[in-house]
Amino acid sequence: METINLKKLAQTLSLSVSTVSKALQDSYEISPETKKRVWELARQLDYVPNSHASSLRRKRSKIIAVVIPEVADSFFSLAIKGIEAMAQVQGYHTLIYLTYESVAKEQTILHDVQSGRVDGVIISLSGETTGIEHITSLQAKGIPVVLFDRVFDGASLPQITTNDFDSGYEATRHLIEQQCRQISFLSVSNSLSISTQRLKGYQKALAESAIPFYPDLIVTGGNDPVSNQALVTALLQRPDRPDGVVASVEKMAIITYQVCEALSIDIPQQLKVISFSNLETAPLLNPPLSTITQPAFEMGYAAANALFKALEKATVNPAESNIMLPSVLVPRASTTGSDRGRKSYSCA
Amino acid sequence: METINLKKLAQTLSLSVSTVSKALQDSYEISPETKKRVWELARQLDYVPNSHASSLRRKRSKIIAVVIPEVADSFFSLAIKGIEAMAQVQGYHTLIYLTYESVAKEQTILHDVQSGRVDGVIISLSGETTGIEHITSLQAKGIPVVLFDRVFDGASLPQITTNDFDSGYEATRHLIEQQCRQISFLSVSNSLSISTQRLKGYQKALAESAIPFYPDLIVTGGNDPVSNQALVTALLQRPDRPDGVVASVEKMAIITYQVCEALSIDIPQQLKVISFSNLETAPLLNPPLSTITQPAFEMGYAAANALFKALEKATVNPAESNIMLPSVLVPRASTTGSDRGRKSYSCA
Repeated sequence: METINLKKLAQTLSLSVSTVSKALQDSYEISPETKKRVWELARQLDYVPNSHASSLRRKRSKIIAVVIPEVADSFFSLAIKGIEAMAQVQGYHTLIYLTYESVAKEQTILHDVQSGRVDGVIISLSGETTGIEHITSLQAKGIPVVLFDRVFDGASLPQITTNDFDSGYEATRHLIEQQCRQISFLSVSNSLSISTQRLKGYQKALAESAIPFYPDLIVTGGNDPVSNQALVTALLQRPDRPDGVVASVEKMAIITYQVCEALSIDIPQQLKVISFSNLETAPLLNPPLSTITQPAFEMGYAAANALFKALEKATVNPAESNIMLPSVLVPRASTTGSDRGRKSYSCA
Repeated sequence: METINLKKLAQTLSLSVSTVSKALQDSYEISPETKKRVWELARQLDYVPNSHASSLRRKRSKIIAVVIPEVADSFFSLAIKGIEAMAQVQGYHTLIYLTYESVAKEQTILHDVQSGRVDGVIISLSGETTGIEHITSLQAKGIPVVLFDRVFDGASLPQITTNDFDSGYEATRHLIEQQCRQISFLSVSNSLSISTQRLKGYQKALAESAIPFYPDLIVTGGNDPVSNQALVTALLQRPDRPDGVVASVEKMAIITYQVCEALSIDIPQQLKVISFSNLETAPLLNPPLSTITQPAFEMGYAAANALFKALEKATVNPAESNIMLPSVLVPRASTTGSDRGRKSYSCA
C-alpha cells in the first residue's frame, strides 16, 4: 500500500504542505472549511501522522479525556480513581465525559475532543455502541485512544479487560453448585463484548451441567430504570420464574433486590443473586450480595498507563498494550444463605 | 467608587484599549506576560467586564465545567444528572473535574479552566477549602460561577443549597425521639457551610432537650478511608460510646456500618444511625438506613439553570439566584427498629 504522507495529501488537495500540516494540528490560521477538507481526505486515505514528531510539534494540553457510560456505577467511580492516580504521576489532568449509554452522545463527545482540547482518550463504550469508526478516526488525527472494560472485539487499539468469559462461567457454576437450575442472565447490551463474553461463559456452564439454555431467560435492560424495573418484574412474576440470577451489571442486581422486596420473594431462599459489582455496600445489603468483583482501580490505572505509553512513543503496538486482569468471585449470603462465609477466590 | 473600565486599565498599564480587551479575552495575539499584567490589575481593581458584550465577542465553547469532590457519593452522581439534563436543553456539554477533597487540586483546576476552555463553572467545594479567591477571580475574567451544596457563606455568587441547618436539627431530634442521649456527629470538614450548618442544627436540637454538648462526640474525617475507619472505630470503642450517630455525609455512614459489623455492635439496638444520603441501596441495607435525602437532581438542575441565566445576562444578581431546596427525612430501621415504617416527611 502506498504510504500516505503530508505531501501526498497536499498534492491531492492542491494545498501547501504547511497548510495541510497546520490543518491537521487544528491551527487557528487555517479556515474551518479547509480543515474539514484536509481531515476528510486524511480519514479517507487512512493517513497516520508520525505521532512522535507531531506530538513534539503539537502543543500538549496535558489533559486526557475519560469517556464512560455513567458514574453511578461503582466500577466506573473506582476506575476513575485508578486513571487519576496514574495521570497525577504524569502531571496530567482528567476530564470526565458521560454518555449515559447513548451512542449518539458518545459520537458527539469524540467529535468535540478532536478539536485538540485533549491529548488522549480513555473510553468504555456505551451499551448502544455497535461500531467504532468514531473512535478509530481519533487515531487518524494523532490522538491516541485506549479502551477499557467495555471494549470492541477486533479493534486494533490498546484494550484493558477482565476475564469476562471465565467470570460469567464461574458465576453461573457457583449458582449451579447452590442447586439453581433455572438461571436468568441480566444484561445491558446485545453487542458489547462484556455482555457477549459473560453470556458465553454462562452458556458454557449450563451446557457442562446439561441444563437447557432458554433464550427467554436472557433479559437485556438499558439506561431507563423504569423500564429495567418492568423487565425484571415481568421476569420474576412468571409462573416458571428463575431460581437464580446472574446480573452482568450492578444496577440490574439492585433492581432485582428492589423487585424481590416488592414481590416478597426471599433472597436467597427463593432466588439466588450474584452480580458483577464493586459496590462498597455489597457486604452490608440484606442479604449481603455475592459479587464478581473486577479490579476496577487497577484497570483504570493500566488504561492510563497504556495511554501514556502511546503518547510517548512514535508507534504503538496494540498487542503489547492488551491487558486482561482477573476478577474475583466473592460468595456472600445472596447465594450461599450463610451470612459469614466470606472467603474469596480468583476466576481463573 | 470609580468605575473601572477598559480605558482605565489601558491607561494604567500604558497599553492600548484593544490590547487590554484582547488580553482579557485570552487572545493568542497577546503575549503571556502582557496577559498576566492585565489580569493582575483587573483583579486588583475588581474590574467586572460587561459580560453581555464580552460574551457576544467571545467565542463560546458551549462547554461548562462541573467541579466536585468525588463521584462515588450518590449525591454527586445524581446532581451531575440534573446538571446534564439542563445542559442538554441548552445545547451544552459538561466536563467533570474531581478534587478528591483537595483545595490544591481545586485551585489548579480553576486555574486551568481560565484558559477559555469552558464558558462557565458549577462547583461544590472541597472539604479543605477555607477561602474562595480562586473562584471569585474567575468572575473577573467573565467566566460565571455557581456554587451548589458545599457553598461559601457570604460569597457574592449564585448558590444552590438545601436547608442544612433544619435538616441537621431534624435528624438529631429524630434520634432524641428514639431515646438517644449520647449522639455523635460525623463530619468531613470544619469549615464548609454544610458541615457547620448541620452541626448548628444538631446543637440546637440537643439544647432544646437539655442534652449537654460534648465536643469530643464531633468526629471530622477526610478523604482517606483508612483514617476515617480508625476514627469511627475509636469512637465506637469508647467506654461511653454513643447510642446514636448523625452522619453528615454518606461515606461516614457506610464506615459506621462496617465498624459496627467488625465490633459486633447491633444497629439499631445498640447504636442508631441516620445519614445525609441519596444512596440507592439505603432501603436495601441491613438494617435499612434512615436518611436525610437531599433533592440532588433538582439542585444540579437549578445550579445549571442559574449558570445559563448568568451566561445570558449582562449583569447577575446573586440574590436572585440563591435558591434553597428542602431535604426529606426518611426514617428506616436503622433508627426506628421497624423494617416497614417507611413514611417520609419534609425537613420544614
